[in-house]
Amino acid sequence: MSLGFPNKKATYTKKANKANLGMDLEEAINDTNSYYLSNDIAVIHKKPTPVQIVKVDYPMRSKAVITEAYYKIPSTTDYNGIYKGKYIDFEAKENHNKTAFPLANIHPHQIEHLDKIIKHGGIGFLIVYFSHTDEYFLTPFEVVKRFWDNKEKDRKSIPYNVFKEEAHLIKLSYMPRLDYLKVVDELYFKKD
Amino acid sequence: MSLGFPNKKATYTKKANKANLGMDLEEAINDTNSYYLSNDIAVIHKKPTPVQIVKVDYPMRSKAVITEAYYKIPSTTDYNGIYKGKYIDFEAKENHNKTAFPLANIHPHQIEHLDKIIKHGGIGFLIVYFSHTDEYFLTPFEVVKRFWDNKEKDRKSIPYNVFKEEAHLIKLSYMPRLDYLKVVDELYFKKD
Repeated sequence: MSLGFPNKKATYTKKANKANLGMDLEEAINDTNSYYLSNDIAVIHKKPTPVQIVKVDYPMRSKAVITEAYYKIPSTTDYNGIYKGKYIDFEAKENHNKTAFPLANIHPHQIEHLDKIIKHGGIGFLIVYFSHTDEYFLTPFEVVKRFWDNKEKDRKSIPYNVFKEEAHLIKLSYMPRLDYLKVVDELYFKKD
Repeated sequence: MSLGFPNKKATYTKKANKANLGMDLEEAINDTNSYYLSNDIAVIHKKPTPVQIVKVDYPMRSKAVITEAYYKIPSTTDYNGIYKGKYIDFEAKENHNKTAFPLANIHPHQIEHLDKIIKHGGIGFLIVYFSHTDEYFLTPFEVVKRFWDNKEKDRKSIPYNVFKEEAHLIKLSYMPRLDYLKVVDELYFKKD
């Protein structure tokens, strides 16, 4: 029964994978967007990380080097673009909490931004990844907004069962890795 | 007639203004977008400058400092967003050349990007500022594309008179400073 070392190694690998999940969600979405782009399905890009540049050096014969900069709080979401003529806008969040998604994971600016997008006729949502169950949920903005608006008097998180009932599972596959536009089709283009 | 010093000062001020024009175009557009946003007219943002972050320091009790980073070539345009339910995408360029706008000012990636945006049903254009005449032209992507596609056999720039004839003047005003959506209305929403 006791296999010793090989067993230990297996445990280690699993842990290493878990630690990488943050990068994996972004990578899965970027890969998917590349697939959409090269197959002429949609044009959706991740916005660059907002950075405040303070100092730039120009060493001779080489390109400019930024030597002092700081991360800025994003004023919008990470992803936007166009799909079937419609403006699409979303934020992707990983969640290591088992029972709920804490609203503190979202910046107030991002909620305001998505709210405006919906009002102007765009499609807005969150992709929330629950690492404990390995599930990706496309969560319509309306669901997030309902909890956000009540967070002062009510709870400060969205329970897992709300995702199960009101969000939509995105299935992982080979190509594209995370076909979230399939869910967008079902939710926003059924009547078209 | 010769007023000496005051006259000299006036000349100096003018030169200083000219040198600042680069910032002014971006500022004029950002101000305009803020106006559109706060007046619920459109949600259009400038994308952060793409930067490749190489080294980050985490000094104790203070926020992360990026100590080595490089500018990356942008893979898309600088501005995008939503207006009247439509996806909008554009690039803004300053031009100090008197007789033409050199196509070398645009990255091939940006042309490819705008081309795809149009194919997917979005609105795409360039805002080109001619500093010599102090004119801002909203230039439909189709006009730019025609010259871009012929640049190997034909000329490598778009003549000023093409802007006069096929692009559309954006008037400067107080609020918003550069009301480019007025031109967008005339060009893309006339039949709606």
